[in-house]
Amino acid sequence: MQNKGYFISSEGPEGAGKTTVMNLLGKKLKDEGYDVVMTREPGGIMISEKIRNIILNNEHTMMDSRTEALLYAAARRQHLVEKVQPAIEAGKIVICDRFIDSSLAYQGYARGIGVEEILAINKFAIGQTMPNKTILFDIDPSIGLERIEAHSNREKNRLDVESLAFHERVREGYLSLAGQYPNRIQVIDASRTLEEVLEEVYIVIKRELEIIR
Amino acid sequence: MQNKGYFISSEGPEGAGKTTVMNLLGKKLKDEGYDVVMTREPGGIMISEKIRNIILNNEHTMMDSRTEALLYAAARRQHLVEKVQPAIEAGKIVICDRFIDSSLAYQGYARGIGVEEILAINKFAIGQTMPNKTILFDIDPSIGLERIEAHSNREKNRLDVESLAFHERVREGYLSLAGQYPNRIQVIDASRTLEEVLEEVYIVIKRELEIIR
Repeated sequence: MQNKGYFISSEGPEGAGKTTVMNLLGKKLKDEGYDVVMTREPGGIMISEKIRNIILNNEHTMMDSRTEALLYAAARRQHLVEKVQPAIEAGKIVICDRFIDSSLAYQGYARGIGVEEILAINKFAIGQTMPNKTILFDIDPSIGLERIEAHSNREKNRLDVESLAFHERVREGYLSLAGQYPNRIQVIDASRTLEEVLEEVYIVIKRELEIIR
Repeated sequence: MQNKGYFISSEGPEGAGKTTVMNLLGKKLKDEGYDVVMTREPGGIMISEKIRNIILNNEHTMMDSRTEALLYAAARRQHLVEKVQPAIEAGKIVICDRFIDSSLAYQGYARGIGVEEILAINKFAIGQTMPNKTILFDIDPSIGLERIEAHSNREKNRLDVESLAFHERVREGYLSLAGQYPNRIQVIDASRTLEEVLEEVYIVIKRELEIIR
């Protein structure tokens, strides 16, 4: 009998530790014998990488927020079609760093376009393929930004340099989404230690996987 | 008193002569003293140019049709915000080579995504800014393709190399749109001589401009 695919997304601001934690989670699940695919948009998909380069280019100060939202949806679509959907159909567990909720929180709430409109263009992009479970790494944005300052080696992109007020609106957006989709979105307090956060995420996901298998 | 802006789009397949005719129309109107802006998507807008390069790149054989549709909408949005809307607001006549109907005909009809869905993402992109008048250059696609073969110096892009059947679906799509929007879309028989086509387009547009001024 073929295993049923399972789709997990992780969400939250930069600096919340979601990439580190989800990588450790993926390793743990692989060690237990699960067939896990770790990915993130644009996920090494050539077309999506090129789209992302346009979005994050610091020269593009003229970029309209609706242009940005459409580009994210385009990159999401291509990554979904080339990588996420084939893996789910093959019965794998797909763990994706950021997915539709990033657009809803960043463009829908924080940029003020409106969640309904952003949801509509993203439904055009992803169709029925929603995550089975979304882990929301919740943290005070000032702590998240401090962590980036302290630890990150990467160059700051067009989103990192937004104001603290912007990142606070992003957080409000995420928490509002968690209220709207309580079954799908699990809020995790990401201000705790890495070990504590990982343990909680692991318990949530294991419970889910045991139900479906 | 400030002149009221006016927005004209031209539509039709490659090889129908729309670019040549509309350039001549623009020149004629300028000679008569109208303040005319000639443009086409991506219109020299840096962000839109980069998006268009992704769409038309012959290496991108994996591109999903919904990704393509979202990219066109993104490029359209940026061109609209940076160039079309400011010109209309300044009271100019904007003549744009291809606009929303290209997406409706190519992606909605010919690629089979559906006109309603393509209309929705394009409404997200353009809001209320629809052309006042659209000139549809109608021609049998086999004649259009022959003209490209015979005259064009440019390299063929990802759309030129689509099958004749594809271009026939595009034509059906355009004619169906003309039936839906009879007040906005004026169908012109583009199989005639350049002079005949230009004369008809000129009469149509002059009548419109005299009404609003």
